[in-house]
Amino acid sequence: MSEQALNYLKDNRERLLAKLTDFLAIPSVSTDSAHKDDIEKAADFIVTYLKDIGFENAEKQATAGHPLVYAEYNGAGPNAPTVLFYGHYDVQPADPLELWDSDPFKPEVRNERLYARGSSDDKGQVFMHLAVFEAYMKTEGKLPLNVKVCIEGEEEIGSESLYEVLHKKKEQFNADFAVISDSGMVAKNQPTILYGLKGFTGIEITVTGPDHDLHSGMYGGAIRNPIMALSHILSSMKDKEEVVTVKGFYDDVEPLTSEERELIEKVPGEDYTNATGVDQTISEKGYTAKEHTMGRPTLEINGIYGGYQGEGTKTIIPSTAVAKITCRLVPGQDPVRIQNLLEDHINKVAPTGVTVEVTKEKLSAKAYKVEPNHPLIKKAATAYTKAFGKETIYVRMGGSIPVVEWLEDIYNFPIVLLGFGTPDDRLHSPNESFPIDSFDKGMETLMYYWNEVGY
Amino acid sequence: MSEQALNYLKDNRERLLAKLTDFLAIPSVSTDSAHKDDIEKAADFIVTYLKDIGFENAEKQATAGHPLVYAEYNGAGPNAPTVLFYGHYDVQPADPLELWDSDPFKPEVRNERLYARGSSDDKGQVFMHLAVFEAYMKTEGKLPLNVKVCIEGEEEIGSESLYEVLHKKKEQFNADFAVISDSGMVAKNQPTILYGLKGFTGIEITVTGPDHDLHSGMYGGAIRNPIMALSHILSSMKDKEEVVTVKGFYDDVEPLTSEERELIEKVPGEDYTNATGVDQTISEKGYTAKEHTMGRPTLEINGIYGGYQGEGTKTIIPSTAVAKITCRLVPGQDPVRIQNLLEDHINKVAPTGVTVEVTKEKLSAKAYKVEPNHPLIKKAATAYTKAFGKETIYVRMGGSIPVVEWLEDIYNFPIVLLGFGTPDDRLHSPNESFPIDSFDKGMETLMYYWNEVGY
Repeated sequence: MSEQALNYLKDNRERLLAKLTDFLAIPSVSTDSAHKDDIEKAADFIVTYLKDIGFENAEKQATAGHPLVYAEYNGAGPNAPTVLFYGHYDVQPADPLELWDSDPFKPEVRNERLYARGSSDDKGQVFMHLAVFEAYMKTEGKLPLNVKVCIEGEEEIGSESLYEVLHKKKEQFNADFAVISDSGMVAKNQPTILYGLKGFTGIEITVTGPDHDLHSGMYGGAIRNPIMALSHILSSMKDKEEVVTVKGFYDDVEPLTSEERELIEKVPGEDYTNATGVDQTISEKGYTAKEHTMGRPTLEINGIYGGYQGEGTKTIIPSTAVAKITCRLVPGQDPVRIQNLLEDHINKVAPTGVTVEVTKEKLSAKAYKVEPNHPLIKKAATAYTKAFGKETIYVRMGGSIPVVEWLEDIYNFPIVLLGFGTPDDRLHSPNESFPIDSFDKGMETLMYYWNEVGY
Repeated sequence: MSEQALNYLKDNRERLLAKLTDFLAIPSVSTDSAHKDDIEKAADFIVTYLKDIGFENAEKQATAGHPLVYAEYNGAGPNAPTVLFYGHYDVQPADPLELWDSDPFKPEVRNERLYARGSSDDKGQVFMHLAVFEAYMKTEGKLPLNVKVCIEGEEEIGSESLYEVLHKKKEQFNADFAVISDSGMVAKNQPTILYGLKGFTGIEITVTGPDHDLHSGMYGGAIRNPIMALSHILSSMKDKEEVVTVKGFYDDVEPLTSEERELIEKVPGEDYTNATGVDQTISEKGYTAKEHTMGRPTLEINGIYGGYQGEGTKTIIPSTAVAKITCRLVPGQDPVRIQNLLEDHINKVAPTGVTVEVTKEKLSAKAYKVEPNHPLIKKAATAYTKAFGKETIYVRMGGSIPVVEWLEDIYNFPIVLLGFGTPDDRLHSPNESFPIDSFDKGMETLMYYWNEVGY
């Protein structure tokens, strides 16, 4: 890579920032049909950009939902690797608007941050890639590797169309590996390789007793209380030391190696208590809170309801009680098997006198993990360090990104999560923003990375 | 008693039913401040009725809460006994509305039952007394005994104001005995003397974890889940054999004698499964369902809520979870001691990482029991048998009527529970109703009874 490409970014900084501002000003809210035209506009913006800098076959692909932007660059030749670059141009709704200090769709720079909906998630990060491609093309006339671009418009609403398209047009989107910039660093300017994400699965438990709410005086003592039955069931699924007591739950869990525990230990201590207001953390027996959150499976009750929920008392035995449960899974665990184990456990412990129904969530995902020593990952770490001037750390996270699991499932290729967001970006919240200098360092990182992995 | 009074009820049947319908149409829901005007309307209805038929000093007495209706009849002279007639004009909320086959506040006759919220509990039964007073006054010009009327508007929310008033105006409400019709028979047309009632007490448990709902991927594994913590607590309070496992809960329980177990055995088998739709009954280890319901204490969870309750999933660790618990108590048990035992137990089993708060219900009541051979009880049995043509049976019940315990505590006079409800009335539930012919036979019973105990 010549210095020229890097200098191009510096020389065109103002113009590129203005162009990004135009992109962010399009309110491409995917969940609201009132923004249908804006969705098209945002997709058009990317298509035009890619055409302008020399990508081939740049197009909006129609889907059952919002269009998907596709383009290719094959100029690196048949011997160069091909990367699938994934991102999304849709954004979360901006409301409540009154909590924004500036218009979410009139990007504004304050305190060295660019404030706008989508500045971090994910339009800002998508734009960085486009600008880097531009810099290469305008200075060297080519990119160091072949690229397939896939920018969808439904990430914030479940990526349903993308799932369809990937399965239908498997070959079109195939590549040697994928790069996604839709995540963050553990701290501003702390290069972070996200090498693992948890999978997830969920069930809903409905306990039904009497066919109507009963007077607790007339029937208490003869009829099983569905809430108590549900409490017995839930309580039997995890002990007070946070160990899931469902038979087989840990069977296929890939154990945390001592190397990984060391990696996790090195992650700058997120103070779970400060951010949440609890007086102490808890975690699975034998593991630290960081280890449990990042590398061990979890089972959480997300919601529960049954009987009287108003003020004061209502002396009833309620007819039903419902609980919603989701599990975050680690490599090795199969979501469908976990659902079955949960169901078996529940049926086994369900008390007499009530009917217990388990509904399985349709969408689940396996966990994702890439080998931290994989050359494509090592090179990413090097690029990060070069741009940010700091050692790169490796983290696994408890969250889930469905597209990552789908790509792995379909293509079984390495997926590199090159995120540049910071913990203060307020994704999905009012006053979303992105640090101005992270744009600069992020683009620098991408330049170094393409140079390293390309020809 | 002349036949005239009895005939008056027959001759005016249509008109009285229409009048009852007007009374039931007032949605006098005491727990919901939106119904404040309806509460006043229902109280006014009774005051007007009593004035119209010649009661003295009929008035709405203002209280800290809903008004109390008071009136007296002194026309039977100083040698006649005075009865305190207690009832309540407030009703339970009607929700969930979608489970009603007709509007809860548009009374409708179907299958020889009158469907409306309050038709059985307790507006319907209050109305029977008013109509009987009317019949006496319109035909004989007087009642066989002196009467003090006390109809409150807070029975369904704990009778707090009544408690205040009774203690403040002790003399005004004093009488030789009391009659209450706010209970039922063990089967339709089976005259039933209720000689024992359970007491009750209640608590609310609030478990608080993080100060806002958390992302289950980012924090799951580090933060105690309040719903799981609550499940552990609830599950520890009663085992699967329906034995309350709170230390000391059974300490002061007056044991069921073999005589009482025989009386209970004789109560015509209420088929708990038919009336409730469950496939089998359950009961405390060592006791039948009837014994447990009628003569042993119970602990029921009346409601629970926390976290996400909408469709689908929301992968959060919720900030709080709440459960409402009430206990039905038997003779010997002290409500305040039971509350303390529950609190001690909860504090002992509460897991770390969450805050657990126990709120004690202010109003509780001890259990009530009267001698089945008391003359005022025997006369009630005779009146029942005359009207219903069937031997009267004696039962203890699992319900609680706080006012019964307070009256006994303040006045120490006999309290006669003359109830006419049936097991199919669905008190506190959708589709509450009352058999039309039970109105007729109930009013006949009251006529015979006043005649027997009066001058």
